[in-house]
Amino acid sequence: MEDRKLLFTPGPLTTSASVKESMLKDYGSRDSEFINIVKSVRSDLLKLAGLDSEDGYEAILMQGAGTFGLEAVASCALSSDACMLIIINGAYGRRMRQIATTHNIKTVELIYDECELPTADDVSRILEEHKDITHVSIVHCETTTGIFNDIESIGSTVKKYGKSYIVDAMSSFGAVPLDFKVSGIDYLISSSNKCIEGVPGFSFIIAKREELEKTKGQSRTLSLDIYEQWKGLEANGQFRFTPPVHSIAAFKQAINELFEEGGVAGRAQRYKENNKILVEGMRKLGFEEYLDRDKRGYIITSFLYSDDDNFDFSEFYERLNGRGFVIYPGKLSQADCFRIGNIGKIFPKDVENLIKNIAEVLEEMAVKTVAMNELWS
Amino acid sequence: MEDRKLLFTPGPLTTSASVKESMLKDYGSRDSEFINIVKSVRSDLLKLAGLDSEDGYEAILMQGAGTFGLEAVASCALSSDACMLIIINGAYGRRMRQIATTHNIKTVELIYDECELPTADDVSRILEEHKDITHVSIVHCETTTGIFNDIESIGSTVKKYGKSYIVDAMSSFGAVPLDFKVSGIDYLISSSNKCIEGVPGFSFIIAKREELEKTKGQSRTLSLDIYEQWKGLEANGQFRFTPPVHSIAAFKQAINELFEEGGVAGRAQRYKENNKILVEGMRKLGFEEYLDRDKRGYIITSFLYSDDDNFDFSEFYERLNGRGFVIYPGKLSQADCFRIGNIGKIFPKDVENLIKNIAEVLEEMAVKTVAMNELWS
Repeated sequence: MEDRKLLFTPGPLTTSASVKESMLKDYGSRDSEFINIVKSVRSDLLKLAGLDSEDGYEAILMQGAGTFGLEAVASCALSSDACMLIIINGAYGRRMRQIATTHNIKTVELIYDECELPTADDVSRILEEHKDITHVSIVHCETTTGIFNDIESIGSTVKKYGKSYIVDAMSSFGAVPLDFKVSGIDYLISSSNKCIEGVPGFSFIIAKREELEKTKGQSRTLSLDIYEQWKGLEANGQFRFTPPVHSIAAFKQAINELFEEGGVAGRAQRYKENNKILVEGMRKLGFEEYLDRDKRGYIITSFLYSDDDNFDFSEFYERLNGRGFVIYPGKLSQADCFRIGNIGKIFPKDVENLIKNIAEVLEEMAVKTVAMNELWS
Repeated sequence: MEDRKLLFTPGPLTTSASVKESMLKDYGSRDSEFINIVKSVRSDLLKLAGLDSEDGYEAILMQGAGTFGLEAVASCALSSDACMLIIINGAYGRRMRQIATTHNIKTVELIYDECELPTADDVSRILEEHKDITHVSIVHCETTTGIFNDIESIGSTVKKYGKSYIVDAMSSFGAVPLDFKVSGIDYLISSSNKCIEGVPGFSFIIAKREELEKTKGQSRTLSLDIYEQWKGLEANGQFRFTPPVHSIAAFKQAINELFEEGGVAGRAQRYKENNKILVEGMRKLGFEEYLDRDKRGYIITSFLYSDDDNFDFSEFYERLNGRGFVIYPGKLSQADCFRIGNIGKIFPKDVENLIKNIAEVLEEMAVKTVAMNELWS
């Protein structure tokens, strides 16, 4: 397509033509054809999570953005006398806090700098101090910086204390291997338009059935009631309220393509390669990552602004946009950064092309790059 | 397309090929191209409502199904000491009650039989009796039966008493003329996949700015906060949380096609014609409408089951489905009905074709029809 742009963002992403073409058909939301799609999507999500039917987990789709899924879990799983430990090292941890505050959910916060990794020891200390904590929530890949939090070691601690574990895996699920059982995950939330490479329209929740059963009658809303949503899907395969049928059909195709790519491991490999080319290319142009190497994931990378006086992010963004490359502004409170995602239907050659275009844009803007410096020295 | 089915349902509907093709492109949700689409959709919605910028109304899009929009309005507009009069003559009136109950909103209910029309006199009487009522809610076209409630005369009464007026126009907006000012509507809620003929993914709210201003800080949820959603869209044209970009692009195209068809009046004309052919055809086959003629709208029609012993709705449904015609089960508490919608990208010839297929299916099932009786007598 003439005006096709590549999205180097945390989502909505660039999706494959075949995923988008799955939306060229209308489905009745209560028709058996659509019901079968939903059924297969729900069972495929468990497969992607490395779970089988014996493991006691359920996949639930929830209309709306990823935040709707997070709010659904928090506002259903925590009864009025529950208390959530929220681990925060970025905007999405803070968002969970905002959800909890809105619903008058008691919270304890464990706050880190955005460049810091939460530790199991800190979690353990807090759980010792606050015996009333019932749930612990964490973000897997904090899109704010791109940091990968260690949900496994923290999960072991959470389980040692017998607490319920909520993992926001919005930006990681489908491309970052995780072990539900080792991590002791009770609720995982992600969305259709992230690493599975579908289009936006809904979030999904993979929940331990035992925990889900406890949420009956606890929902603080009608729309975001995960128990009733689950029961509805189980009863007749239908949604309680109109589902985004086209987005779900696209998601089914996206899952098929993920399996074809070798599942989570295969997708991780491509994203890692994309990320390697991105970081190496940006370094050559004089950009530095915000995070230390050992903390960075391979989903999205925060780069510090160039300190050249001619560097202006808005202009940089617009010029790249004009060339068909959409990057992403920063969200950091502590540093001037922009972000480049490398997820979606994007391949190493696309990243190389992005780097080439960034070099040209910097030259147009007369921003000195290391590469140029080298040429000039 | 080989397997194209026509949806004679209340939505998701049959949409045009061009509407679906608008989803063949990915947009960055914070990119100016997408922001411009959202801006134009919001202003077109006011135009469709017969409002201009001087009238003091705002259009807000909300991710999720129609019910999410209803819950957003109820859970934001009504403070803890507000009280809602809920006019109920079907499942969608009852749904508003369910929302109010969930959020501990005080309510007074005015309940009618599903075949009865609410009257301004009754509303007036209740408003006299219950001085604490602050808001009145009603459904425009109650999809349960297809009845058209008189939102205008009731609205005048609501305004006479100085109350806030909430209209669920899910199944009517875009195809049934309404006058915001005469009806005194403060909040109207509808969704993307109804008479505007878009695909599902979001609902929208057309609200009086003055009322909207009062909802600041009143939301009981984070996701469904109409004030913050509005302020976000006003500030930078962006959604607070990931929007269904493809659905919104499709909606833009759907609105264009609605304008091309002559706006609300043009669409009303086609739907009326569809409905006339449907009802006449069904009568010829021996089916009777559940509602009296003067109460029926032209969106969806409830037909009583045939009393022939050979009539079995599931079989009837499946046989029609196999022929590519998806109809809709009933939702009535008081009678055995099924429903046939005539909205969406459906034309008189499609309805004629449906009738022809229904006749053939009845013959296959050996259900006697009036037409057949006539032949046999």
